[in-house]
Amino acid sequence: MSSKPSLPKGTRDFGPEEMARRNYILDIIRGVFRKFGFMPLETPAMENLDVLTGKYGDEGDQLLYKILNSGDFLSRTTESDYRDGSRHFASLISEKGLKYDLTVPFARYVVMNQHKISMPFKRYQIQPVWRADRPQRGRYREFQQCDADVVGTDSLLCEAEVIWMIREVFNALGIIDYSIRINHRKILQAIAEAIGAPGKESELCVAIDKLDKIGSEKVIQELTERGFTAESTSRLKPLLNDSSANLDKMEQFIGSGNSGISDVREVFDLIRSSGMDHVDFDPLLARGLSYYTGCIFEVKVNNVSVGSVSGGGRYDDLTGVFGLPGLSGIGFSFGVDRLYDVMEELSLFPESANTFTTALIVAFDQNAWSYGLEFLRELRTAGIHAELYPEVAKAKKQFSYADKKNIPFVLVAGESEMEKDGFSLKNMKSGEQELLSKSAIIEHLISFNGAQ
Amino acid sequence: MSSKPSLPKGTRDFGPEEMARRNYILDIIRGVFRKFGFMPLETPAMENLDVLTGKYGDEGDQLLYKILNSGDFLSRTTESDYRDGSRHFASLISEKGLKYDLTVPFARYVVMNQHKISMPFKRYQIQPVWRADRPQRGRYREFQQCDADVVGTDSLLCEAEVIWMIREVFNALGIIDYSIRINHRKILQAIAEAIGAPGKESELCVAIDKLDKIGSEKVIQELTERGFTAESTSRLKPLLNDSSANLDKMEQFIGSGNSGISDVREVFDLIRSSGMDHVDFDPLLARGLSYYTGCIFEVKVNNVSVGSVSGGGRYDDLTGVFGLPGLSGIGFSFGVDRLYDVMEELSLFPESANTFTTALIVAFDQNAWSYGLEFLRELRTAGIHAELYPEVAKAKKQFSYADKKNIPFVLVAGESEMEKDGFSLKNMKSGEQELLSKSAIIEHLISFNGAQ
Repeated sequence: MSSKPSLPKGTRDFGPEEMARRNYILDIIRGVFRKFGFMPLETPAMENLDVLTGKYGDEGDQLLYKILNSGDFLSRTTESDYRDGSRHFASLISEKGLKYDLTVPFARYVVMNQHKISMPFKRYQIQPVWRADRPQRGRYREFQQCDADVVGTDSLLCEAEVIWMIREVFNALGIIDYSIRINHRKILQAIAEAIGAPGKESELCVAIDKLDKIGSEKVIQELTERGFTAESTSRLKPLLNDSSANLDKMEQFIGSGNSGISDVREVFDLIRSSGMDHVDFDPLLARGLSYYTGCIFEVKVNNVSVGSVSGGGRYDDLTGVFGLPGLSGIGFSFGVDRLYDVMEELSLFPESANTFTTALIVAFDQNAWSYGLEFLRELRTAGIHAELYPEVAKAKKQFSYADKKNIPFVLVAGESEMEKDGFSLKNMKSGEQELLSKSAIIEHLISFNGAQ
Repeated sequence: MSSKPSLPKGTRDFGPEEMARRNYILDIIRGVFRKFGFMPLETPAMENLDVLTGKYGDEGDQLLYKILNSGDFLSRTTESDYRDGSRHFASLISEKGLKYDLTVPFARYVVMNQHKISMPFKRYQIQPVWRADRPQRGRYREFQQCDADVVGTDSLLCEAEVIWMIREVFNALGIIDYSIRINHRKILQAIAEAIGAPGKESELCVAIDKLDKIGSEKVIQELTERGFTAESTSRLKPLLNDSSANLDKMEQFIGSGNSGISDVREVFDLIRSSGMDHVDFDPLLARGLSYYTGCIFEVKVNNVSVGSVSGGGRYDDLTGVFGLPGLSGIGFSFGVDRLYDVMEELSLFPESANTFTTALIVAFDQNAWSYGLEFLRELRTAGIHAELYPEVAKAKKQFSYADKKNIPFVLVAGESEMEKDGFSLKNMKSGEQELLSKSAIIEHLISFNGAQ
């Protein structure tokens, strides 16, 4: 049997180059998470469907990947079940699904381990999730999520630390031109009240979430269609067109005593001594997710084609659905695929992110090969990533291997090199070549690695 | 809705402590793979079922996790399909499955990317796989595999490098008492011929694979049941009871000119200058997997309750099933779960593997908290993993947080500390406490991290 193999739609292989670049990003993020005291967690790909179902709305439920029960899965069904259709039938032949995000499994973990976890609990989680979405450019059916959450405290230090972490990650990645916008759910709530549409903040959020894309006229049109009165939309209009919003003006608009305003003010007070760079209050930032109840934030890189690359917010009831109510926390995540695209677009990946092997030893006869083998072990003992081409092959073949694998140095030994107990060291980028002693080569390669 | 959540049978969460210990092992393995020129690859969790099916034997096919097609999956079925039973029906409602190992997806990747890969291609892959096996102690339905393969060369340097890599990994892990046993499929073939049972090496392998567990008498009994003649088993018997096997004796037994013997000799010649420690020729090592055609090897840690922790071998046709025949290669893998258990049993995990945060700042009033917040940023700027307890809470609560999170140092500031622009540094292990200046604390914590 021989068939031309293919990948499932919406999934990807990550070959060495993509892996190196993804790891470059993830190592930086992981390093910052750890510096701030976040600890790693991994949960299974498979969850029981009763853990997943009902957590992401009707649309989300439709996008869950379900796993067929093992063995004779039809034995628990009847023809009448079959005739009842796919939805009913699925519930009989499938008990497990692939996780849809990292938040629900985290909530499940917290509840199941509540007695051994010490609060506040800071965890990060970098794992793939699966959604049976229509694949399109930049949207995949299997993709990595990269989350950090603190639960068990409502201290606004957490909000400040999120801002610090984002700035530290972007600084390390070399991304300079970006903005972190902050808002608060209670401010959105107060806006709804102030324009005479109390309790309608979800509809308000959905509409103004599109402001960047469709403009203020269309937002007002949508709100009108959703039953907002002309008076409400006309009171809202000045806000939509005000690009110089600040906390004081907003307080005038919604009235004093709003806890959203005082929360954001406190967060700003906490970070002020480290500078307010990249941080903006945006009373119209909405973010879709309905479980946020406090501060919300979103990060955009300016002047690139990619949208939001990070975001999150505070919630006050992460685990209630699993029987542990009232646990406050804050979570945020980095969009790794999008950050990857931003880094590509801005050419920010360093050359070294794609260097695996520092030196390749090549040999053109058996004698030189044995001589090379001996030095190979010395190089590795010195901690240098090194290879010996495994066969005595033609020069072209061996050099092409170094070239394709992006190996910066090639070592060759002929009669004269062996006589002098050394190798010719060829710099593959400059083309320069020099006969050096073994110890000089080791020194050179170590300092190259240090300089990367 | 509130329900008590649970995990699917045979799956596990990895909390911070397990993650830290697993990462300790994986970082060492990854570091050695990279030093030897192996490059990372990741493939999707989901594969098309036609890629997976038929690659692992009938039993393996039964253990594949199948994913239910999305949407109205029954629309492509009829009642007659339903009556045909689970096996037929599954093929109509499921097109994708979860990967069962890393070898088949690797073969698929090589075939799909054959024109951009430069041979020899060295890749490592550390990812979970899924098997609908009966869960039992040490056997999971979702578990990590950790593979390294070289394809595109039949150089025996690869075999030598596998031995070096294993020794380097075990050395770094601190495992001292272990043995790497080596054999060759052509030697097993020749044994079958020498005892008058040519072509029956698979049955022979299956039986002698159990030698360690059931003893030589039972192996012979099993072979007899499988149709081996009394003459064959009596010729085999001395081999089964010979614990001092070596290449020369084996050559006498099967006759000269066997390429298995010469391959193993060459591998030994390649590694001899680095010492023969931990390496043994074992003519009865069989290993189950049928696609091996050359050298095979297996690693056991001595005097622990865990079995084989690593193994692999050479194959000469990895990708033929996907239409690219004749590609020789060698692969091996580490059993991460088992290595974890060995490390636990031998108490080899260093204390530092479970340290996330080096210092926690605690504060008992708002003034001290603000003072601590300022220093927190200085600590992090110096690269120190540090936290400030997010609230002004009781001493007991804050110290217990440090304790449970295994944080080695706690910083406290009262009136006198703040006057001297310092903190009291408490060593949580020794209980010692000392008032130090901020710069002395930074120096102390950096040197502690370096010493870990």
